[in-house]
Amino acid sequence: MDLTNPLAALEVGYDIPAHPGMDEAQIQTPCLILDLDALERNVRKLGDFVKAHGIRLRVHGKMHKSVDVAKLQMEIGGAVGVCCQKVSEAEAFARGGIADVLVSNQVRDPAKIDRLAQLPKLGAATSVCVDDLANVGELSAAAVRHGVSLACLVELDCGMDRCGVSTPEEVVALARAIAAAEGLGFAGIQAYHGAAQHLATYPERKAALDKAIALVKRAAEALTAAGLPPELVSGAGTGTFALETASGVYNELQCGSYAFMDADYGRIAAESGARLDEDGFEHALFLLTGIMSRPRPGRAVCDAGLKSQSVDSGLPTVFGRDDVTYLRCSDEHGVLDDPDDALAVNEKLRLVPGHCDPTCNLHDWYVGVRGGKVETVWPVSARGKVY
Amino acid sequence: MDLTNPLAALEVGYDIPAHPGMDEAQIQTPCLILDLDALERNVRKLGDFVKAHGIRLRVHGKMHKSVDVAKLQMEIGGAVGVCCQKVSEAEAFARGGIADVLVSNQVRDPAKIDRLAQLPKLGAATSVCVDDLANVGELSAAAVRHGVSLACLVELDCGMDRCGVSTPEEVVALARAIAAAEGLGFAGIQAYHGAAQHLATYPERKAALDKAIALVKRAAEALTAAGLPPELVSGAGTGTFALETASGVYNELQCGSYAFMDADYGRIAAESGARLDEDGFEHALFLLTGIMSRPRPGRAVCDAGLKSQSVDSGLPTVFGRDDVTYLRCSDEHGVLDDPDDALAVNEKLRLVPGHCDPTCNLHDWYVGVRGGKVETVWPVSARGKVY
Repeated sequence: MDLTNPLAALEVGYDIPAHPGMDEAQIQTPCLILDLDALERNVRKLGDFVKAHGIRLRVHGKMHKSVDVAKLQMEIGGAVGVCCQKVSEAEAFARGGIADVLVSNQVRDPAKIDRLAQLPKLGAATSVCVDDLANVGELSAAAVRHGVSLACLVELDCGMDRCGVSTPEEVVALARAIAAAEGLGFAGIQAYHGAAQHLATYPERKAALDKAIALVKRAAEALTAAGLPPELVSGAGTGTFALETASGVYNELQCGSYAFMDADYGRIAAESGARLDEDGFEHALFLLTGIMSRPRPGRAVCDAGLKSQSVDSGLPTVFGRDDVTYLRCSDEHGVLDDPDDALAVNEKLRLVPGHCDPTCNLHDWYVGVRGGKVETVWPVSARGKVY
Repeated sequence: MDLTNPLAALEVGYDIPAHPGMDEAQIQTPCLILDLDALERNVRKLGDFVKAHGIRLRVHGKMHKSVDVAKLQMEIGGAVGVCCQKVSEAEAFARGGIADVLVSNQVRDPAKIDRLAQLPKLGAATSVCVDDLANVGELSAAAVRHGVSLACLVELDCGMDRCGVSTPEEVVALARAIAAAEGLGFAGIQAYHGAAQHLATYPERKAALDKAIALVKRAAEALTAAGLPPELVSGAGTGTFALETASGVYNELQCGSYAFMDADYGRIAAESGARLDEDGFEHALFLLTGIMSRPRPGRAVCDAGLKSQSVDSGLPTVFGRDDVTYLRCSDEHGVLDDPDDALAVNEKLRLVPGHCDPTCNLHDWYVGVRGGKVETVWPVSARGKVY
């Protein structure tokens, strides 16, 4: 056993889909592969953007749930830290050495609040979102109990109709309570407009963001007038980040999907009118699948269904192939239309998943490939960390 | 540390949602819970049915992926073994001590075939499905190489339009090849009509099954005429098993969902016209979720979204509550309509997932509850075993 390789004891085809050094053809399917060249280009591209525009980038770790990808984004992609949605997810990042973690979500369960307040002891500057006055007291008590400081952002619902307060007045009231609470620091505004990210055209996204930005500006002005100017105004995703950047009020982006991309983001139009995966970011994440049956002419069946991808945002596309179409799926199968009978049993296809986040969360490993070889295998560090 | 409890080292809220002995109120959400009383009633109910009708039951392990649930089904529910869809899944069951495992699917990748042929060495009588003559030689070579015997069923497409051959003639040709191949034994016909399971009314399901059964009968007669009478004719699911049982040609059922049930199966009508979850099987599987935000009157947000349930077959229902509705979800959130403002922050709800199989595959644990206490915590043994 190779003691220098902690993955060596894991069995390919049972515990893990590949080992570093293998040829791509030997990877066991279905599994997630990362085109490392494309991933690095995406990561550098947004890193160059934020550097050029003088804005902070806090990458969304909920998308990939990977300490290794987050470190790459911090090393070559200009990221200052990560955000994520769950305390257990934040813990996975903090345990992995990420030193700045925002839980961009409400934390209300007493046991979760207690764990949150222990994150700074793992070496991570910790921040969290708040949308309810009662939560301020809960967080403060936990911070005091553990002798730590937690930074709090007030979550403003700027169009998602999910969590968050709705008015500048509520933002100010919460900010005052946070600023007055022992163990807490008021850090600014959380204003992520998730519902705007996937609107099909740039003008639609701009119209949604114009409204959101106007509300965020009013909240920031109200805070400043109250003597609590927001240090951070954080938000934005892959579909809209240029709009938040240009707003003059946001100073931190929270993009996630840009690093991997998916079929749903690929379809939306950039400002140029071209698809976002043509004028924007490249597909770096693929679901590798193998053909397992050719039941009749014109039809092939692959080994990737609902248990290896989420279809909430539509079916996958077949990367680089115009001649075959992924028609439908069941739990473990994908049915393909193959009018030219081009597909052979055991042939591999790269699927572009419809929605990257919940697809990544199904898998234990990312297989990083370059030049036809498996260069690395990274754990999906926070997979299943839903608490 | 309690050395008699191998789960004791796992941290509640990070590694695991609960420990045995905890109160239900302490369970960390979101997580899967099993109402053990309801589960046992469902398992016994189908066990009584197969005993009364003299038909075999091979439970579908792909639904729950749990060695513990499979053992319960064998101990008190009349099951002779399990079927599942992947070689790695079969390995998890064989390693867990299940002595009879059918991979009810095609296995074509050389590395997977090699692993399949090693399953008997783990103590499991092993069978597999075949829909292509070329596969017979591949399986035979592996069986000979490992000195084992593999039972093969010919998969007949009886209405799913997925894998399988389509005619009695093809079934006979494959059966002949299997019977002549070293290391293989011809075991019969695999004929599962998955597409019929969720048809809304009993007459619709009966019409679909009538067609399927007619084709299966012709295939069985052709095999008998060829001197290869099928020992097994296996298939059927939770929506149709009474029809296959009454057919006179099926002699093994492959039901899965009956043990847990889900919202989609709950909605279909039994022969009586009542819902299947009223005249059939009870909901025993729930996604426990906690309320984390009350952003405005009439609206609540819970902590269970796309990463803790699959919505391919529709959104979850809220068990035992007519006053609140799960409206939509994002990756980590569920948005609830709560017109009476009945829900409080940290209140727990039991969601009935839309589709049990891919929901179970998202989780590492089942928390078994009885009488308000956590009685057991079972691993989802084959979670992520997609190879």
